[in-house]
Amino acid sequence: MGSVTSLTCVVCSAHYIERPGLYTCPSCGDLATLKVSYDYEAVRKVMTRRTLDAKPLVDLWRYLPLLPVREVGNLMSLRVGGTPLYNAPGLRAKSGFPDLWVKDDTINPSGSLKDRASAVTLLKGLEMGYTEAAVASTGNAAASLACISASMGVRCHVFVPAAAPKTKLAQLAIYGADVITVQGSYDEAFKLCIEACEEHTWYNRNTGYNPYTVEGKKTVSMEIVEQLRWGTPDTVIVPVGDGCILSGVWKGFIDLYRLGFIDQLPRLIAAQADGSQAIKRAFDGDGVIRSVEVDTIADSLAVSMPRNGTMAVQDLRASKGMAVVVSDEEILEAMKLLGQTTGIFGEPAGVVSLAALLRLHAENNISTKERVVLMVTGTGLKDVDSALKGFST
Amino acid sequence: MGSVTSLTCVVCSAHYIERPGLYTCPSCGDLATLKVSYDYEAVRKVMTRRTLDAKPLVDLWRYLPLLPVREVGNLMSLRVGGTPLYNAPGLRAKSGFPDLWVKDDTINPSGSLKDRASAVTLLKGLEMGYTEAAVASTGNAAASLACISASMGVRCHVFVPAAAPKTKLAQLAIYGADVITVQGSYDEAFKLCIEACEEHTWYNRNTGYNPYTVEGKKTVSMEIVEQLRWGTPDTVIVPVGDGCILSGVWKGFIDLYRLGFIDQLPRLIAAQADGSQAIKRAFDGDGVIRSVEVDTIADSLAVSMPRNGTMAVQDLRASKGMAVVVSDEEILEAMKLLGQTTGIFGEPAGVVSLAALLRLHAENNISTKERVVLMVTGTGLKDVDSALKGFST
Repeated sequence: MGSVTSLTCVVCSAHYIERPGLYTCPSCGDLATLKVSYDYEAVRKVMTRRTLDAKPLVDLWRYLPLLPVREVGNLMSLRVGGTPLYNAPGLRAKSGFPDLWVKDDTINPSGSLKDRASAVTLLKGLEMGYTEAAVASTGNAAASLACISASMGVRCHVFVPAAAPKTKLAQLAIYGADVITVQGSYDEAFKLCIEACEEHTWYNRNTGYNPYTVEGKKTVSMEIVEQLRWGTPDTVIVPVGDGCILSGVWKGFIDLYRLGFIDQLPRLIAAQADGSQAIKRAFDGDGVIRSVEVDTIADSLAVSMPRNGTMAVQDLRASKGMAVVVSDEEILEAMKLLGQTTGIFGEPAGVVSLAALLRLHAENNISTKERVVLMVTGTGLKDVDSALKGFST
Repeated sequence: MGSVTSLTCVVCSAHYIERPGLYTCPSCGDLATLKVSYDYEAVRKVMTRRTLDAKPLVDLWRYLPLLPVREVGNLMSLRVGGTPLYNAPGLRAKSGFPDLWVKDDTINPSGSLKDRASAVTLLKGLEMGYTEAAVASTGNAAASLACISASMGVRCHVFVPAAAPKTKLAQLAIYGADVITVQGSYDEAFKLCIEACEEHTWYNRNTGYNPYTVEGKKTVSMEIVEQLRWGTPDTVIVPVGDGCILSGVWKGFIDLYRLGFIDQLPRLIAAQADGSQAIKRAFDGDGVIRSVEVDTIADSLAVSMPRNGTMAVQDLRASKGMAVVVSDEEILEAMKLLGQTTGIFGEPAGVVSLAALLRLHAENNISTKERVVLMVTGTGLKDVDSALKGFST
């Protein structure tokens, strides 16, 4: 099963019932994301800690009653989610955090956490009657939609800035997506994608726009809780570009909390590159997202005007969390440290969580006694040129 | 548990008991690989179809009683094996094989099937008292040993030809391996590695030399059989360079057959690039492996003198199989077809199995009624330049 009961605007708190064509809040505009709620009483009747414990953790469809899609059927063949949570003894020793965990989402089918969102939104779009889908993306979301669409036999259209890394462009070609290369920024690609979706009646998977991407991404937190045997981490450190993964992570914990499956919530840390810190500035300031100049090696985090910024800042505050920025040098050092102590090769945007942990530690903003989960969100194989920069000195 | 009872030379049939320093047959020389046998009676007492069915298929350690290592303990943190077997509806429809399956080993930690061998051999080396390990490799085996070694906190040394793809070299750097770049071919790197291992008492993981790499690789067949609910495929198509994966695949079926867990054996197809076809020539001819000129886009298959050729030809014959060669163009077409119909991005060497299927079909050497498993052995993210060549026309 799985069914949406309502959508709430994070800006004006207006409620809506789901319908095709409803993405952000019609009265507040493009940057007012909608939050999805369920009938938790109904969910509890079909999904409990016991029913979950009885099933091996293979993929994210175990959470179907808490997802906005009715059924999975034969459409979905790739394994999405069900990624490992590592105890990483080498990194624990080296960092001095004995209760540190690494959630490795690099092994999703297209190599990033975005597959969770692509799988859920694509099924949702098909249930709503759409036959084709589209996305604007700096790379990972596009590669992910292309990958999942190919596996389902669905045509997809991706709008990418011409500057996207070559590997991500190669993925699009291999998966057979219709690629629209935009001579401009991510923000311009985003705008073009919205217009094209309206014109051609394509389902729009844009991050921070389609309300169901958060629902797909939240499954990562549910897995973490199950992998910790229904334990809540003290702190979860999340790479943050437009803030959609952070809101997904928070939504996962909130849903489990509302269901009564956990009785504590974690503190979230938003890890940003200092060359792309719109959410950090809003969080430390008045909460209003303003466009920033962007310059970072972490291409997946490079967002001038975060689409999901408002929701992310709200969620960060609700978790009593904070935002941390790190330099490109710290990111490259973290990439090496992660590889050398765990055997996980993350992309720059994927390892900013580890860089943030080290920064928090150096600034005495975290206790080594905490149970900390680092989210590693994308594989380094997609951006080898950046990785090699860490060795040029 | 898991313990080796004997090692048998595939050339002279001499038997040995395992000991440190024993790799190939001491009397026959470097190209005489040793085959590992177990006390199957003892294995049956602790591992049955029922005990396996009772445990979720998470990784390859479920087969510990049939592996040459005593225990896994806390050393191994990365998830190796437990990869998906996809039914791939899109590829079934497009290829006309309604009972086709794809074993996706691209999602192993370092992105290739080689992780199965690295994990098993490294644990074996540590049990034998070694503290450091080494390998010569065209790329994947080196990246794999570096990855698994990093996760276990073991120092490793890798000998690679200077021409290895940049991504594989980047992996080595990130995982912190000691990289010895050889200005020469894989065969020269291989020789240097053997000498260095003797001099420094490093454990030698060389493919087609260390007898336990086959033991790690065999777990892929065991997973396939379990994923088919104890069914044996009619045909398994395997990418073949030095022939070690093929022998691993065969060994997995043989072990299960000897245990009485399956009552049929599959036909194996060795899929080679036409620019690297030493095993095809030996198989079609007198069975003797002779060095060939090498020229193929599939770098992981580019082997002039296959180290495991003798065993691979024997296994191929035992399975009543055959060898098929395909062109680089067919490989690139297969890469696109796989990506567009399944969402799996394989490297050239990793998709040669699909190219071989299409060739077999075109030449009427396979029935569409067969249950066929394609092995996809490495991720395309490692060699994007090759992938992009498929679109230059």
